[in-house]
Amino acid sequence: MLLEADRMRNLVLTEDMIATERDVVLEERRSRVENNPGAILGEEIDATLFQNHPYRVPVIGWMHELAQLNREDAVAFYERYYAPNNAALIVAGDVEPAEVLDMARRTYGAIPANPELPPRIRPQEPEQNTRRTVTLRDQRVTVPSLRMNWVVPSYTTAEPGTAEALDLLSEILGGGTRSRLYQELVVRRGIAQQAGAYYRGTALDDGSFVVSGSPRGEASLEEIEQAIAAEIRRIVDEGVSEQELERARNRFIRNMIFARDSQATMAQIYGSTLATGGSVEEIDAWPNRIRAVSAEAVREAARRLRPEIVTIGYLLPPASDE
Amino acid sequence: MLLEADRMRNLVLTEDMIATERDVVLEERRSRVENNPGAILGEEIDATLFQNHPYRVPVIGWMHELAQLNREDAVAFYERYYAPNNAALIVAGDVEPAEVLDMARRTYGAIPANPELPPRIRPQEPEQNTRRTVTLRDQRVTVPSLRMNWVVPSYTTAEPGTAEALDLLSEILGGGTRSRLYQELVVRRGIAQQAGAYYRGTALDDGSFVVSGSPRGEASLEEIEQAIAAEIRRIVDEGVSEQELERARNRFIRNMIFARDSQATMAQIYGSTLATGGSVEEIDAWPNRIRAVSAEAVREAARRLRPEIVTIGYLLPPASDE
Repeated sequence: MLLEADRMRNLVLTEDMIATERDVVLEERRSRVENNPGAILGEEIDATLFQNHPYRVPVIGWMHELAQLNREDAVAFYERYYAPNNAALIVAGDVEPAEVLDMARRTYGAIPANPELPPRIRPQEPEQNTRRTVTLRDQRVTVPSLRMNWVVPSYTTAEPGTAEALDLLSEILGGGTRSRLYQELVVRRGIAQQAGAYYRGTALDDGSFVVSGSPRGEASLEEIEQAIAAEIRRIVDEGVSEQELERARNRFIRNMIFARDSQATMAQIYGSTLATGGSVEEIDAWPNRIRAVSAEAVREAARRLRPEIVTIGYLLPPASDE
Repeated sequence: MLLEADRMRNLVLTEDMIATERDVVLEERRSRVENNPGAILGEEIDATLFQNHPYRVPVIGWMHELAQLNREDAVAFYERYYAPNNAALIVAGDVEPAEVLDMARRTYGAIPANPELPPRIRPQEPEQNTRRTVTLRDQRVTVPSLRMNWVVPSYTTAEPGTAEALDLLSEILGGGTRSRLYQELVVRRGIAQQAGAYYRGTALDDGSFVVSGSPRGEASLEEIEQAIAAEIRRIVDEGVSEQELERARNRFIRNMIFARDSQATMAQIYGSTLATGGSVEEIDAWPNRIRAVSAEAVREAARRLRPEIVTIGYLLPPASDE
């Protein structure tokens, strides 16, 4: 803590260090994004899904902007944001809370707050009116796939119960091999080699809901897309059964409990929740809030996945003959 | 000039005035955008075409942000940007230049420069890797249409000759009834009721090239799209003839000369050029630079309209039965 608290304010950044670190980040971007067609597509999907919100910008930064970053930028960012009044300290492990708190007070607590901390200006999304597609053809792609994306409320922006219902919807629709999409597309019809769903709900502003699939054998991407749309429509039209909901709740809460076996994941959960405006109490109450989700709330959540207002990404091999 | 110079620095903005003006702007947005499906689509196309550059944001602003603007925002903007060192004065009409200059010096010239003028931070576009579509279905649409859009250099960012070639390409491809698209799609094949092209080249950063079309009778949007792509490919493959280029140059320069018959258009041309980093000399030299464009440069410009890296907007009536 002495070390970390010291470098929260007294870091010496030389030109050499900046140049070296920038190269490390550029290399990281090359290996994680530029070398991975799915990641390139993911970035362009987000830039298309979010029309106004900065969530459209990749966290690591666009390549051409990264390449221009210099010591001045780094120091300005550091001086503006690295302050105890803009930090959450997460300690996971075999420690005594009272001791940790005492140490934190003596180290981080001794650093003055930054009174210049700028207000968070957060552009929101305009009304979504269109259906959008983003298609990446790349010779490294052997199996085509698609991702359907919707802007939906996050745990921070949602009315109580809505984010929890979206979490359970993702579990029922596409959480693992027991989910509707997997059972219908992969197991029963055999048209997909993969199908799933997840909800990106940990965010200060709106999050997103993602459904993905990949065809198998002679099946086309279009078939997968229609089959996914049909499964969503089935929940909108008929809802989910109490039994199915109960199983999903149990799976979801069990995963939550398993995740807590890992100190690193625990730290991650608390850190990301606190950083996005949540509280420790909310994390503790989460399992009960998941238990309280009704079948009608899940059906209501499925209504947000509108077929005509969606952003779909397609990852394809190069066109055969154009 | 006394009046205008006075309000460049000494404007009194009351809450009442701001509220009234904001309502005027909201109403303007309602009538020009919200009431016009083509305009709604246009905004979402730009937000999809530009992934990083602020050109993605509508000039008038998104509705939800307009609605929140207040006196404080207006005053901050006014104090930051309304200064003689951030203005171009355009006077068109029956005036004596020496007199105008003298008046300007006595009025605007007496206002101190704003030393706090912030630097222009201009995020650039990342590499374009994908083909994107934006589809708006709206019950006010009776005739479907499409717009294909590419990010291309502007007069400010292009190498010498490139923007001029893009201007002539737009003229040859889709400038009026003599253009290739009109002749092929509307006149010869009769599949389109409209087809055209234009180049948005007046910009500080990259501009865009737009090709549009609308089917006629039984023809489908897909046919129009393929026919447009074929006409672009024909220029890429075979180039344009000297005779066709000469006719396009003449039409283009003639339009330029006709435009100068209007004092307002003249002011507009000089104002927008100066505001986007150009000079009076560049405007005067423009006809000669258009005359210097070669057939090969037009062909090179057409290569920028890549079929796999494009953003296409579709304006459609509501789905009949989905």
